[in-house]
Amino acid sequence: MTSPKMMTVNTSSRNYPIYFTTGFDFLTEAISSLEKTYSKFVIITDDHVNPLYTQQIIDELANFEREVIVSSFIPGEHYKTLKTIESFYQDLIEHGSDRGTLIIALGGGVAGDMTGYTAATYMRGVDFIQIPTSLLAQVDSSIGGKTGVDFNGYKNIVGAFYQPMLVYINVNTLQTLPRREFMSGMAEVIKHALIKDSKYYDFLSENVEQIKALDTEVLIEMIYQSCAIKKSVVDEDEKEQGVRALLNFGHTFGHSIERLKNFEYLHGECVAIGMHGALELSKQLGLISSDEVNKGLALIKAYELPIYASNLEHDLLYQEMFYDKKTTHNRIVFALLSALGESFLSKEKIDQHTINQVMDVIIN
Amino acid sequence: MTSPKMMTVNTSSRNYPIYFTTGFDFLTEAISSLEKTYSKFVIITDDHVNPLYTQQIIDELANFEREVIVSSFIPGEHYKTLKTIESFYQDLIEHGSDRGTLIIALGGGVAGDMTGYTAATYMRGVDFIQIPTSLLAQVDSSIGGKTGVDFNGYKNIVGAFYQPMLVYINVNTLQTLPRREFMSGMAEVIKHALIKDSKYYDFLSENVEQIKALDTEVLIEMIYQSCAIKKSVVDEDEKEQGVRALLNFGHTFGHSIERLKNFEYLHGECVAIGMHGALELSKQLGLISSDEVNKGLALIKAYELPIYASNLEHDLLYQEMFYDKKTTHNRIVFALLSALGESFLSKEKIDQHTINQVMDVIIN
Repeated sequence: MTSPKMMTVNTSSRNYPIYFTTGFDFLTEAISSLEKTYSKFVIITDDHVNPLYTQQIIDELANFEREVIVSSFIPGEHYKTLKTIESFYQDLIEHGSDRGTLIIALGGGVAGDMTGYTAATYMRGVDFIQIPTSLLAQVDSSIGGKTGVDFNGYKNIVGAFYQPMLVYINVNTLQTLPRREFMSGMAEVIKHALIKDSKYYDFLSENVEQIKALDTEVLIEMIYQSCAIKKSVVDEDEKEQGVRALLNFGHTFGHSIERLKNFEYLHGECVAIGMHGALELSKQLGLISSDEVNKGLALIKAYELPIYASNLEHDLLYQEMFYDKKTTHNRIVFALLSALGESFLSKEKIDQHTINQVMDVIIN
Repeated sequence: MTSPKMMTVNTSSRNYPIYFTTGFDFLTEAISSLEKTYSKFVIITDDHVNPLYTQQIIDELANFEREVIVSSFIPGEHYKTLKTIESFYQDLIEHGSDRGTLIIALGGGVAGDMTGYTAATYMRGVDFIQIPTSLLAQVDSSIGGKTGVDFNGYKNIVGAFYQPMLVYINVNTLQTLPRREFMSGMAEVIKHALIKDSKYYDFLSENVEQIKALDTEVLIEMIYQSCAIKKSVVDEDEKEQGVRALLNFGHTFGHSIERLKNFEYLHGECVAIGMHGALELSKQLGLISSDEVNKGLALIKAYELPIYASNLEHDLLYQEMFYDKKTTHNRIVFALLSALGESFLSKEKIDQHTINQVMDVIIN
């Protein structure tokens, strides 16, 4: 067994490795390298992922000769609630889990966010690791320590910054991911290229077929590049006081569309429409050209993602944007492009008229 | 206005001041010294404290010309639940509170723990300050960043380490505290003396009358000394990986008694009985003499605190002790005394027979 590709995230609260692998056979070594003696393992996963990968993880953990508990939940954003978190607390208590427990997030973004939040808040914090199995989780949500749940329809409004001990990515889990979910994850990949790296944009344009065919080698390269961009931002600004908000490119419109459409679109699909909005807004403000907007849209469309939302009222959408966590002092902060691969945060208030013009373009 | 006495807590996550005052007139200056522009203030308090002090705080905050929201809850450990926390989230959302909000904990330990937990988890963390109005909160729970709620009867099993921006102690609020609550707080004060400082033991013995008469000068000195001990432990070990567990002296028995008696005793009363247990255990293990046990008990009794629990089953109590957060790998870690004013953590498993003998002494 050769050591897999890896990278280290360096936040102010903790440094931790990300492993890029094609199987689960390195997991024992990865956990051993933490040099901690855990009293128990608790795998939190959803009912879709559970039958696919849990047994493989349990087989690996057998090397530690400790009890392994599995807590599974009904998949989907609808169950990303404090009620589900309470069911995890209940399971942890019933099995006598103490502070020496290692909790394992196995699944997509929802599993990672909820597991991380459970780990952050059970007994004031126990260790956890991320084993993301969706593209969205592998390139985005498993890295950086954002954890949380929705509350009364407000996405991730309850949560904590809490870093994992390690992130273990097995790209072969993408083989079992529904195609629509894979494409949804591509929205975050495209976002990374648009905000930070024009060469990465070229890579994504040139490898559309290989990526869609889930070519393992190209996937590892892509996920590694996306994680490198995410890592660089998180290293600089763990708690989102500044540059980390750049990762919100497309999300200000996107989150609001997601809320108003009551989750009929996938997250990445809303981000794709939201990136259309952010590209258009950057153009309206004279920052980028129509050509650059079209180049951005071409990549989004190449990965079969939507760029328009239908049946939305301008006023409602505008109002929703104010409830975003990034709003401070009644000013919406937008991540904007100054070129393909270069981004910054808006410093001035952008008037409602301009935002309405953008809505005219992205709502059909 | 002269500057009040102060002290700085230095944790790995944040340094912050504690102010020791006799009024609220320094609050504006204390908040100003944080050098932050807050968008809104949210005071979280309970229905007992609310009519006593909220208006004074609001009058002080008027200097900042920002909206002030008050969210009040039914006092008592019974309401220290996630349900109450959800009502705070709801209030925060309804008033459009963003990340620039400053949340203010006004009240006793329950208000501080729940407010801190709300601040730790709303939008992944907003700033908060502590204005403790009970003795327990002033000498113990407001310092060190332990926040949380009870869940299914397990005390503080859901929570987070989250440090306040400052702690503002106005000792004159103790004038309105019920006498039984004041004495309950004295249990933590006595604990500080027993685990860390024999001179402080002498101070508490010599000033029984002044302290019980709420002499302002003696109270400020006492609270300052207790905070200094608490601070020194928290500075060294914010996340309770080691020495911070010394502050658990008397709490292993105490928390279990508290759970089994379903909160009929106050927290400090359970700690007092638990300290009796920890003194007795230290004696059984040959660490301290009968004389030292008696000296410890004399101080506990001088402050009108109980040293015996009635109608408890040994087995049930023993079992409860395993659910304490400080249990790791099935071994209960006890804070023990090697002398009055000197403590350490048990390294070996203490056999059930010895613990039973201690129970024989403290249960009547």
